[in-house]
Amino acid sequence: MQPTAPAGEFGLIDWIRRQQSGRSHQGTVLGIGDDCAILEVSAGSRLLVTTDMLMDGRHFRLESDGAEAVGYKAMGVNLSDIAAMAGLPRAAVVSVALPRGNAVLIGQGLSAGLKRMADRFEVDLIGGDTNAWDGPLVVSVALLGETSPPGPVRRSGARPGDVIVVTGPLGGSLWRGRHLRPEPRIKEALAICVAERLNAMIDISDGLSSDLNHILEESGGLGAILDADEIPIHPDAIDQSRTDGISALDHALHDGEDFELCVVLSAERSRRLLARPPEPVRVYRVGEITAEPGLWLRRSGGVVLPLEPCGFDHFRNRDSAGGP
Amino acid sequence: MQPTAPAGEFGLIDWIRRQQSGRSHQGTVLGIGDDCAILEVSAGSRLLVTTDMLMDGRHFRLESDGAEAVGYKAMGVNLSDIAAMAGLPRAAVVSVALPRGNAVLIGQGLSAGLKRMADRFEVDLIGGDTNAWDGPLVVSVALLGETSPPGPVRRSGARPGDVIVVTGPLGGSLWRGRHLRPEPRIKEALAICVAERLNAMIDISDGLSSDLNHILEESGGLGAILDADEIPIHPDAIDQSRTDGISALDHALHDGEDFELCVVLSAERSRRLLARPPEPVRVYRVGEITAEPGLWLRRSGGVVLPLEPCGFDHFRNRDSAGGP
Repeated sequence: MQPTAPAGEFGLIDWIRRQQSGRSHQGTVLGIGDDCAILEVSAGSRLLVTTDMLMDGRHFRLESDGAEAVGYKAMGVNLSDIAAMAGLPRAAVVSVALPRGNAVLIGQGLSAGLKRMADRFEVDLIGGDTNAWDGPLVVSVALLGETSPPGPVRRSGARPGDVIVVTGPLGGSLWRGRHLRPEPRIKEALAICVAERLNAMIDISDGLSSDLNHILEESGGLGAILDADEIPIHPDAIDQSRTDGISALDHALHDGEDFELCVVLSAERSRRLLARPPEPVRVYRVGEITAEPGLWLRRSGGVVLPLEPCGFDHFRNRDSAGGP
Repeated sequence: MQPTAPAGEFGLIDWIRRQQSGRSHQGTVLGIGDDCAILEVSAGSRLLVTTDMLMDGRHFRLESDGAEAVGYKAMGVNLSDIAAMAGLPRAAVVSVALPRGNAVLIGQGLSAGLKRMADRFEVDLIGGDTNAWDGPLVVSVALLGETSPPGPVRRSGARPGDVIVVTGPLGGSLWRGRHLRPEPRIKEALAICVAERLNAMIDISDGLSSDLNHILEESGGLGAILDADEIPIHPDAIDQSRTDGISALDHALHDGEDFELCVVLSAERSRRLLARPPEPVRVYRVGEITAEPGLWLRRSGGVVLPLEPCGFDHFRNRDSAGGP
């Protein structure tokens, strides 16, 4: 059969997901389509697995950022995926394509950055594959973690009436290079999870609108209304908006690589969480889940406008050097 | 402290290994330095983890080989690492950098090839990361497996007097594109392992001389003598030697990507194995381990010459498009 031609990055991912579905080991609890896969490796012992690749010119600029920062970010973005499942990171393997001219020095810097982030979260770097070539630097990390007792939290459990919460101000991660210094919300995810039962969670890597849209799709085609006045806007987004003319709110809604968590839970639980967030977590209510599909933005006057999930798509954007 | 500048690919890997050693989880049974890492995920349950990255122009040529062949090879070379530990493959994650102009079609072909090889060995493709960029195709696979009851077999257990055995003819893998069609020796490794206790094993990806040298180094600085007349030479190596003027023996000794196993076991066990190899395994005695360090080649007349381990090194070679 002729497969339907998929459109863009997420279309391709959906296509691959359909191709790869079918026969699977009993132990494969969760495959393609969430922040991590879940494997049952022995009775009661579940493993989280995630991978993220960074490329020069897309997710960093080696010349200005330096190899150490690249390694630090590469480990950080993978940790953020473990956080999004409320997991405990454990061990990583790393494969790299090093630019041949300066392979050893770049490899050393990269290794130091990987280790600095890994050490912060007690991750063992257990293996890898080292290559050199005539192309730009590429680094791919695969990270393994354990599920936590209150987790794992998937993308797929949102319900109409649920409240959407984020863990920090959003937008402008590219402006001062904040995208190079992700703060994986491992501890925060666990603390929230222990405090209140969550229905869905994702980390904000593509942008709030785009990542929230993943939750809506995975939860069976729900919708959401975001309240414009409640979105916490990062100071970097405000500064950047003064230069590029894009509103700070649009930066907060659509920029990627904040690496905050987007959490969905029942209205009652959200009231408790917002009233008394566990230390050291910051929580901001940003909107609510609706039965009717679609993403909407409610302005202060009560006007509700459709909102396109237009976060980072590698297949479209070609300009920036920060992007998931 | 100023780190010592490492030379070449293996120097860099050693440097990284020293940097990353130190604190580790109790469950990290084996870190950097073998075909796979070993993690103890729960009491008695051990996981194998490996990763390999392939880049256009280094390990394949997308334009002539096609994306499907690249996916097939990418999964195959990782399976070969699981075979080298006598493991059972289980699940994989894949990250890709797709050339933007044709990202969707290449992604589909790649996915089909990955799945075709994965299905042969009952591997679930459980997740990934899909990116597009202006650079050449890069694909990185991380593969998880289980240890088998007779395994895992490490690189580090060779002893003086042991015999070296390989599982198939070597050399010329580039000549007819055989490097694109690896036959991961999963079943063969298990069968050999069940038949006889092995002291060390590695898959031949960099080339026999280079991969055997890894065993010698990991086993505490041993040496080996290879018997020139006993090395099984692949017909492709003979054909290639007619064109490039490099001897077929040199191809067999130094070419990479045969993906056969190099097995080390006691002389007594090797006699039994060679006399009655388990179905469907082919075994060829190629030499023996010595207490004195160094790699040597014994010619038919009894002349023994030093042999440099000069398999594929990404930091030196710049010509071929087949290489580990």
